[in-house]
Amino acid sequence: MPRITKQPLELLATSDNALPKLHHHLQHVHPDQFHGWLGHDPSSAQGHLHWQPFTPKPFTPTDIDIKITHCGICGSDIHTLRSGWSPTHYPICVGHEIIGHVVRAGAAVSSRFAIGDRVGVGAQAMSCLRDDCDDCASGQESYCPRSVGTYNGRYLDGSWSSGGYADYVRVPGHFVVKIPEALASLHAAPMMCAGITVWAPLRHNGAGPGKRVGIVGMGGLGHFGVMFAKAMGAEKVVAISRRRNKEADARAMGADDYIATAEDDKWERKHSRSLDLIVSTVSSPDMPLAGYLRLLRSKGQFIQVGAPEDKLPGIPAFALIAKGCKIGGSSIGSPREIAEMLEFAAEKGIRPWVEARSMKAANQAVVDMEEGKARYRYVLVNEERADQAKL
Amino acid sequence: MPRITKQPLELLATSDNALPKLHHHLQHVHPDQFHGWLGHDPSSAQGHLHWQPFTPKPFTPTDIDIKITHCGICGSDIHTLRSGWSPTHYPICVGHEIIGHVVRAGAAVSSRFAIGDRVGVGAQAMSCLRDDCDDCASGQESYCPRSVGTYNGRYLDGSWSSGGYADYVRVPGHFVVKIPEALASLHAAPMMCAGITVWAPLRHNGAGPGKRVGIVGMGGLGHFGVMFAKAMGAEKVVAISRRRNKEADARAMGADDYIATAEDDKWERKHSRSLDLIVSTVSSPDMPLAGYLRLLRSKGQFIQVGAPEDKLPGIPAFALIAKGCKIGGSSIGSPREIAEMLEFAAEKGIRPWVEARSMKAANQAVVDMEEGKARYRYVLVNEERADQAKL
Repeated sequence: MPRITKQPLELLATSDNALPKLHHHLQHVHPDQFHGWLGHDPSSAQGHLHWQPFTPKPFTPTDIDIKITHCGICGSDIHTLRSGWSPTHYPICVGHEIIGHVVRAGAAVSSRFAIGDRVGVGAQAMSCLRDDCDDCASGQESYCPRSVGTYNGRYLDGSWSSGGYADYVRVPGHFVVKIPEALASLHAAPMMCAGITVWAPLRHNGAGPGKRVGIVGMGGLGHFGVMFAKAMGAEKVVAISRRRNKEADARAMGADDYIATAEDDKWERKHSRSLDLIVSTVSSPDMPLAGYLRLLRSKGQFIQVGAPEDKLPGIPAFALIAKGCKIGGSSIGSPREIAEMLEFAAEKGIRPWVEARSMKAANQAVVDMEEGKARYRYVLVNEERADQAKL
Repeated sequence: MPRITKQPLELLATSDNALPKLHHHLQHVHPDQFHGWLGHDPSSAQGHLHWQPFTPKPFTPTDIDIKITHCGICGSDIHTLRSGWSPTHYPICVGHEIIGHVVRAGAAVSSRFAIGDRVGVGAQAMSCLRDDCDDCASGQESYCPRSVGTYNGRYLDGSWSSGGYADYVRVPGHFVVKIPEALASLHAAPMMCAGITVWAPLRHNGAGPGKRVGIVGMGGLGHFGVMFAKAMGAEKVVAISRRRNKEADARAMGADDYIATAEDDKWERKHSRSLDLIVSTVSSPDMPLAGYLRLLRSKGQFIQVGAPEDKLPGIPAFALIAKGCKIGGSSIGSPREIAEMLEFAAEKGIRPWVEARSMKAANQAVVDMEEGKARYRYVLVNEERADQAKL
């Protein structure tokens, strides 16, 4: 049964932006049952989701309820729907690029969030947050071994996490981030996973002036990679894709050069030793990894962020030894890093290339996504709410 | 025909250590033809080397001739003798852990070296040294793509490089390093390749206070890894080998713990997330790489320095992504780094565990090395010379 939030008006009036929040306030309810697009088996990945009610995790004082306006479609959603990485717990509601408004904040987090705040949630809903956890204590929550994903994760109380192809989402407040005013919700949504997944390895591996950066894969993640690397001031940004058909787009996003690995003759030799850092967003296990490594200069780094369902190709040790190169992985980012990325994106005017798709037609959007039609990210929109909030 | 070096006595008198140099001076000749243990085909790796004369590269003003007293036996020598990595140019004289005395210094390098100086040569004899080479210009000569190995490498004039299982060696002076007085030649020899190969990745990847370091493989390289990591102040040093039979030695070298991967049950699980940095010195392509990666903490690094003749095992991308880990390679070190390592070893009193073997009996030493009998490095010694020089 829905309940009207009893948020004192004076609290709202002290916040930065009282009127829109008051506007939201009046319509914000926080139901005990949510509705979302549920997958019941691996075939759901082919667009067989059902809009159904479901019960979220029990509300605790550290939780936030968010009324969802936007949710990006991430490749992980489809991997998970089809149990591609490991067996999925069905029924499941996926989606972890979520933007919406706070409709309920637990007592332990209500000092950080006011009702009506525009916020986002990415791919992580929980970590242990213990002082004796190396990862949490050092602000690397995304590497905490007790991490719980925004969907298909299990909370300590045994309940399963549920994502953003829905009307509401309930998540621990630690992993909820406020969205800067300058960023439209439609643009902020895909930053919550696709964006941060490439931003973090670029930031932590020195993308910036004097560095030549390659981005493998021109999809949702890759297109952020090109834009972020350029905005970070990289000396050169090279988009690397199988086909040449995305070259014009890549250059419009800021790429200085483009390599089409399935079409360019001897691309590994021609561009050998030309890049300091490569961020690979592709998830095909038959990627030409040895070829990518040839593109690196001495001491170069190749960071894989796309997660194939199979092993990476074996490579000769000499490929790493002779140039002192490294192959690494990187997983999303911490809430602090997400906030940094959002500020960076707001300051640099980063606008991802997204197509709004109606939340009502999520199944078709999933099918189109899987067919590679997204240019370059689909964002599901609960239109009435987005209209009301003038987003 | 041997010629007596005409080194002016006054120059010798101005150097630090005139008397011993004078002593050497009187007996230093620089022949036009050298003698060494030559391999003529892959079977030479089984101890079928022949002591024969050979003609070194033509002497140029940048070259140094060294009268060899010591030469360590490196696994690379045997890989090369049997054409294990790629076809070897026969006949070949291997050996790249060379210590001896300068008997001739070209005009371009005679200001750096006096006749009689005790010096060493490692695995690299040349790089391009051009200002427009990223690697040479930044002091990373070992990654220069035009690098020439101390043996089986080809100089620009077309002549082939020859190593230290010999009476003399001729190499460009840029890659000749002076040996600190405090280091015995017997101990300095294996540092020229085995030592620097593990010293550089430890130094460059933060081995030191607060870091837990694993060393895979307890051989010539690995035993240096344990000693160096300990001397660098690592919080914990763990030796990782297949069998437990080297545990007492490893602990005597400074290891705080020991993992025997072929004998310990569930070692990957028991020691999971316990190390920040692993340097792997093994060169077996069927190494349990995925297990090693489980030992890493978040953001941990695994650096491979042993070079298998086959590919590294394929690994799941998740193994890198979930913990933000990296797999890297590292190749020997620059002359500057070798000099730093030697100073470090002298200061910390690092004494490798070596067995002196007579240069005359190189074939048996090669056989014993290949059978894994070295504890932990063999060094070929030209005894008469070493005795004369009181080393």
